[in-house]
Amino acid sequence: MQLPILADRFRCVIYEENQLKLLNRRVYPHKTEYVVCRDVESVAKAIEDMIVQGAAVIAYTAGYGLALAAKVHRNMGRDELKKALTKAAERLRNTRPTGAELFHVIESSLAVGLKSLEEGKNPDEEIARHVYSLMKRGEETARKTGEHAARLLEDGQTVLTNCYAGPALVYALLFARERGSYVKAYVPETRPYLQGARLTAPTLREAGIETTLIPDTSVGHLIKSGKVNVYMTAADRVALDGSIANKVGTYLYAVVAKKHDVPFYVLAYTGPDKKTHTYNDIVIEERDPEEVLTLANEPTAPDGVTAYYPAFDIVPPEYIAGIITERGVFHPSEMKHYWG
Amino acid sequence: MQLPILADRFRCVIYEENQLKLLNRRVYPHKTEYVVCRDVESVAKAIEDMIVQGAAVIAYTAGYGLALAAKVHRNMGRDELKKALTKAAERLRNTRPTGAELFHVIESSLAVGLKSLEEGKNPDEEIARHVYSLMKRGEETARKTGEHAARLLEDGQTVLTNCYAGPALVYALLFARERGSYVKAYVPETRPYLQGARLTAPTLREAGIETTLIPDTSVGHLIKSGKVNVYMTAADRVALDGSIANKVGTYLYAVVAKKHDVPFYVLAYTGPDKKTHTYNDIVIEERDPEEVLTLANEPTAPDGVTAYYPAFDIVPPEYIAGIITERGVFHPSEMKHYWG
Repeated sequence: MQLPILADRFRCVIYEENQLKLLNRRVYPHKTEYVVCRDVESVAKAIEDMIVQGAAVIAYTAGYGLALAAKVHRNMGRDELKKALTKAAERLRNTRPTGAELFHVIESSLAVGLKSLEEGKNPDEEIARHVYSLMKRGEETARKTGEHAARLLEDGQTVLTNCYAGPALVYALLFARERGSYVKAYVPETRPYLQGARLTAPTLREAGIETTLIPDTSVGHLIKSGKVNVYMTAADRVALDGSIANKVGTYLYAVVAKKHDVPFYVLAYTGPDKKTHTYNDIVIEERDPEEVLTLANEPTAPDGVTAYYPAFDIVPPEYIAGIITERGVFHPSEMKHYWG
Repeated sequence: MQLPILADRFRCVIYEENQLKLLNRRVYPHKTEYVVCRDVESVAKAIEDMIVQGAAVIAYTAGYGLALAAKVHRNMGRDELKKALTKAAERLRNTRPTGAELFHVIESSLAVGLKSLEEGKNPDEEIARHVYSLMKRGEETARKTGEHAARLLEDGQTVLTNCYAGPALVYALLFARERGSYVKAYVPETRPYLQGARLTAPTLREAGIETTLIPDTSVGHLIKSGKVNVYMTAADRVALDGSIANKVGTYLYAVVAKKHDVPFYVLAYTGPDKKTHTYNDIVIEERDPEEVLTLANEPTAPDGVTAYYPAFDIVPPEYIAGIITERGVFHPSEMKHYWG
């Protein structure tokens, strides 16, 4: 099963000798080009500027950023290098606050780096190997999550998905097709970054899924008209209380979906974040208002108009029909016991 | 009380000898320029292409279009001219289906034209005089509607308004201020035409209202966070059953507003449409998918991705706290008796 380029993280985040190549999601699908990073600061900026996006891809990018830091500082003494790595990890942690995986990958990559120094090994190689193994494991997680999700989809159904749900969604739709369920997709364009128009629509299209782009505001009308059977997204973070954080708009859609008995399923990959007990532990990123005040780099509103751009919102468990992880489909109330 | 240019219809729709000048809302606020129409077809295209927008402005434009038709064909015989006017009215009626006022103004303007021919008067002058009188009356309606709306706003409140609610909203906020209630506004950008960013935000700004532009998808998060006190829009049509049609997204927002006890008020100007008994009598316009597939004239999604763009949605009466007309504030259930 060949994944579309954007769903194939190994074609999006490529670590090579001395450099990290990132598929530039700011210009995709108009251009398929890579941004090349050679130090931590350029990696951190790539994350902040959304050259990469999606909780997992952001996290792997940061992990490799730490490998680059080790490479850049390879001639330092051990203690200095430890300090440099710790500082690099701090820089990378401060890029985006909402997704949980970023912090996990930075933490484990830093631990691998520090340990390799203790053991006299090459930290950049060890970190890179570690991140690559996380990506392999992540790919397996996405595939399994997609397999479970596919069983929830019936022939002829239409799935609504906003933002960009990553490879698990692609797998879900492809596995559903293997099972004889031909499923179509409605994709809101997801202003201002246009994840839906620029990332999800071309990806599903590449996977051969019939895909219709819709205005973000039309979701209520479509659900009310009975044109949506299933609402399915990923989540940037799942809390142990069963609430999730995802692209802003998800709450709006989830409330209306519930109102019309359309089930909302969350593709949660590895499951809830162990340290996020409730939605109160989730920081909602507020991005630069300029992103709302401009369109294709041109200002939309005149001077004097300010903007506010919360990039995520929280959906409480009562709006979620199921949280799908690599282990299966769970009720949100089961999240608190997910890790035993 | 000086209205901002966009709320002052007399500066937006200007009928002169032989021509109709329309403030081009496709390029506002970046440019304040007029499109000049000299025949019915160019007027009809201006309505279809949204050079003008907003139920009332569209309607006046169409009325003047009929005056232009009479002018263009002034050398025809009486019966031929009657036919030409009737045909022109038909062309104008077929421009946009959802707003009710368009049909009223065309109908009454055609009647004025035909009657003036019977009476040996000049039909283009009579129609133009008629439309101007409707505009004067519309201005009075907007002001009274705004006065009633202002009494619903309390000092320090924040009003959410999507699309472009016209002069009644501006009057509401200005009259509220006169009463000592300083009200702020949240304005979703309203993709794809960007009524919010390009029309509402500059208009409220010009009126001195503190205005914050937000992504269309952030409304759920803002309401849930307690940042919205009142949700207020216009309506393209109010049915006698108390349901309304307005810019797509209004249903989505109304459902979430109700969920969080934020009252949704509709600025309905002259009130319900006498012939629209229920929401089933309202045709939801589906606009060209290209409007969703492009952004600033550039394609967003690749070839092969289709789009669907319903331009309006219906809000049932149970989500509406009050329908505000020139006569006062009504419960949606009172609409069926509005005309006696």
